[in-house]
Amino acid sequence: MEFTVQQIADLLQGEIEGDNLTKVSTLAKIEEAQSGALAFLSNPKYEPYLYTTGASAVIVSDKLELKKPVSAALIRVSDPYSSFSTLLQYYQAALLASKTGVEEPCFIGSGSEIGEDHYRGAFSYIGNNCKIGANVRIFPQVYIGDNVTIGDNTTIFAGAKLYSNTIVGSNCTLHAGVVLGSDGFGFAPQPDGSYKMVPQIGNVVLEDDVSIGANTTIDCATMGSTIIRQGTKIDNLVQIAHNVEVGKHTVIAAQTGISGSAKIGNHCVIAGQVGIVGHITIADKTTVGAQSGVGKTIKKSGTIIQGSPAFDYKQNLRALTVFRKLPELQREIEALRDRI
Amino acid sequence: MEFTVQQIADLLQGEIEGDNLTKVSTLAKIEEAQSGALAFLSNPKYEPYLYTTGASAVIVSDKLELKKPVSAALIRVSDPYSSFSTLLQYYQAALLASKTGVEEPCFIGSGSEIGEDHYRGAFSYIGNNCKIGANVRIFPQVYIGDNVTIGDNTTIFAGAKLYSNTIVGSNCTLHAGVVLGSDGFGFAPQPDGSYKMVPQIGNVVLEDDVSIGANTTIDCATMGSTIIRQGTKIDNLVQIAHNVEVGKHTVIAAQTGISGSAKIGNHCVIAGQVGIVGHITIADKTTVGAQSGVGKTIKKSGTIIQGSPAFDYKQNLRALTVFRKLPELQREIEALRDRI
Amino acid sequence: MEFTVQQIADLLQGEIEGDNLTKVSTLAKIEEAQSGALAFLSNPKYEPYLYTTGASAVIVSDKLELKKPVSAALIRVSDPYSSFSTLLQYYQAALLASKTGVEEPCFIGSGSEIGEDHYRGAFSYIGNNCKIGANVRIFPQVYIGDNVTIGDNTTIFAGAKLYSNTIVGSNCTLHAGVVLGSDGFGFAPQPDGSYKMVPQIGNVVLEDDVSIGANTTIDCATMGSTIIRQGTKIDNLVQIAHNVEVGKHTVIAAQTGISGSAKIGNHCVIAGQVGIVGHITIADKTTVGAQSGVGKTIKKSGTIIQGSPAFDYKQNLRALTVFRKLPELQREIEALRDRI
Repeated sequence: MEFTVQQIADLLQGEIEGDNLTKVSTLAKIEEAQSGALAFLSNPKYEPYLYTTGASAVIVSDKLELKKPVSAALIRVSDPYSSFSTLLQYYQAALLASKTGVEEPCFIGSGSEIGEDHYRGAFSYIGNNCKIGANVRIFPQVYIGDNVTIGDNTTIFAGAKLYSNTIVGSNCTLHAGVVLGSDGFGFAPQPDGSYKMVPQIGNVVLEDDVSIGANTTIDCATMGSTIIRQGTKIDNLVQIAHNVEVGKHTVIAAQTGISGSAKIGNHCVIAGQVGIVGHITIADKTTVGAQSGVGKTIKKSGTIIQGSPAFDYKQNLRALTVFRKLPELQREIEALRDRI
Repeated sequence: MEFTVQQIADLLQGEIEGDNLTKVSTLAKIEEAQSGALAFLSNPKYEPYLYTTGASAVIVSDKLELKKPVSAALIRVSDPYSSFSTLLQYYQAALLASKTGVEEPCFIGSGSEIGEDHYRGAFSYIGNNCKIGANVRIFPQVYIGDNVTIGDNTTIFAGAKLYSNTIVGSNCTLHAGVVLGSDGFGFAPQPDGSYKMVPQIGNVVLEDDVSIGANTTIDCATMGSTIIRQGTKIDNLVQIAHNVEVGKHTVIAAQTGISGSAKIGNHCVIAGQVGIVGHITIADKTTVGAQSGVGKTIKKSGTIIQGSPAFDYKQNLRALTVFRKLPELQREIEALRDRI
Repeated sequence: MEFTVQQIADLLQGEIEGDNLTKVSTLAKIEEAQSGALAFLSNPKYEPYLYTTGASAVIVSDKLELKKPVSAALIRVSDPYSSFSTLLQYYQAALLASKTGVEEPCFIGSGSEIGEDHYRGAFSYIGNNCKIGANVRIFPQVYIGDNVTIGDNTTIFAGAKLYSNTIVGSNCTLHAGVVLGSDGFGFAPQPDGSYKMVPQIGNVVLEDDVSIGANTTIDCATMGSTIIRQGTKIDNLVQIAHNVEVGKHTVIAAQTGISGSAKIGNHCVIAGQVGIVGHITIADKTTVGAQSGVGKTIKKSGTIIQGSPAFDYKQNLRALTVFRKLPELQREIEALRDRI
């Protein structure tokens, strides 16, 4: 994709300084940009790069006063960062939109329907009786079992696996290797010490605008649904167990694990490598620090916790400060004892 | 699948109260069930739902005395929970059994044999010289390398990958994205600071009745076998390194990692996000708490440990209780010092 | 593959004791070896097995004096361990080399080139405009997006997924289920509490001689590249976030997570289940103990740290020793207070 500076300035309603026919074909950081790239300058700290950049064009503030001559064409706008973000979004949307049509061979079972303007990559598999919306992109080697429902504008990257009966909303993104609907880890101990599988016949439900990172696994419910509510974003290699419910607009960072039947509130922020035990409830707007282990229900909205086991993060920080000095503390106690 | 209440009562040897021709096609919790669903009532706490449920039929105790009229058909049995579990198992088995035959295209190499009544999904791959039992279900996009052996009644869900020479027993379940037989992490440091790969030519052996969760990885042995013994259940996103041996009927929860050559006993319970260092032995019936780091051999059967590094869980709990009060403890010591 | 003892002795420049026509077809440990296997004896502790082994041939030291008769053919060399390692490497290379040609169906887009002597497994997918070197092995169900570059002699095992624009060097190994180039976890909070995706248009670059373990995920950069430098080895289920840079000849063990824009030095050793926060720098030759949480930049080369949060490992060990005794310490303080 190649554009002239004029086309980009029109899109951003910016004013051009320099050659309006200069062509750009990629986006780059101002300090790394080379010929053919469009960059932006927002943070004044980076202004020196403006005079040395290899970029063919740079988006700058309409208030910027140049201190030296600039070889790149300039596009002046009121908020360069926001304008550049807009371009990034156009760019990514255009990339995805360029994937259309059906690559062969791919498999679609009986009774399955799929909306207009979709992409189905080679070796993708759709089972029986699925209902898939319009403008959906299904990359190569994706597996979609039977009776799966998927909303409009959802993208499923290569090799993601959706077990039968999964429900995915609109505008969702599932990254490569995601598994939705694997059996919950339910095994009943038997008198002889062996375990008997507890059948898991529920499903996974993702509401609209949900994003799931690469190789993350979400188990189906024993009965009913494991639910991820609207707008929630989940990072890579996260484990969500059976019957968990995650609220709206919550973010969960990489390698976190949430045990069975836990309920996570809306607008929570859960950092990486956190563990949350089963059957507890986490209040709305809770923040959990990285590597924490949450063992108890959090009732108060806005709580910030840290540690394994987790408790108030300020209290935890203070305890950790003393923890480092424990050997000195021990010596001090011994000294006191000797003196008495 | 649709059944009449009569058919289900016959199966469970229960007595019908209401219309024996009522039809049900799904199973649900009594508090969520809608028309067409069969539910059960075991815990008396849930009895109020019996009088309001949308379920078409409910399995209840033969001793239950109704306090109000019930619109659902009732099936009375001696143990409703156990009867419902039986139904769940029939249901899940029937779902799996409905997958039979071979979907095209799929790949099978030379010299490979596969037993009767199997399912091979589209885009599944079987290499050369494999011996695969009867009633095996191989879902779409599964990869099975060369010289792999798989026992009867084993199910391998979509996209699981079995490297060459893997051996899987009967009645095993491998969930989507499982990797068996990837190279052990063996690299010999060289004088120049680089690393040279130590070839890993062993394999992975799963005995009968083993279950492996989604996206779990089990490395092949350097030589010999990485072994998971009979009846052991492993959750999602677990890492099992080369030459590890896990005993019989042990359960390992999600995101746990076991380092090379560790030996885990029989009937152990290992919680989530645990790390176990290499070359140690964990005694039978050991319980390891979540997020623990086990650095030493556990010799005594029945040991319960917790913490990183892990030690006796009661001792750990007591130490953690004091940990939270460390700032107060420090102040107290300072006060004592001032007073002396 | 079957060889005579004579062929192996020629390869290793060893001397034969016994039947030079004895045939071997596999490699095994001396204590487990059976007929047809070639074993080695290096550690004197294992000498007793030499007189009882089922191996058909054993590589031994040219200085070994036999104490009993041996049924296996012997190959005498100066360094048995090193000779055996050489054989292991021949063995593994021969196994890989036996995979050649193209299995159908597989998919290759327009404008893509691939060098000589390659293997492409069934159901593998290569997008448009890719440049793939010679002697590359692409196993079944691998996904390679558009504009991907791959160097010579690289092996990509079953089901690995490389998003568009990924660059992989020569002599790399990517294990099953690896994901390279998934979106970085970037979401900008909006005034209404929802999150808006920040487009991630960068890529992933692996330099030469890099090895990536099964189901590990490496996100693309927001702009620019997430980079893994030459010779670095990464284990299974590791998470590398956007814009991270990992130096040369560093090893990262399983289930470790590195947050966005962190820079890891050369020759570092990072143990399993470690978490590293974003935007920090880790000096060359740093060692990080298992389950540590690294929250601050490490400036000094050769630093060894441990703990969550991590600090000097010796200081951490001493603090942990006192941690276990905290209840006693508390009692002691109470006793002192009472006595004053």
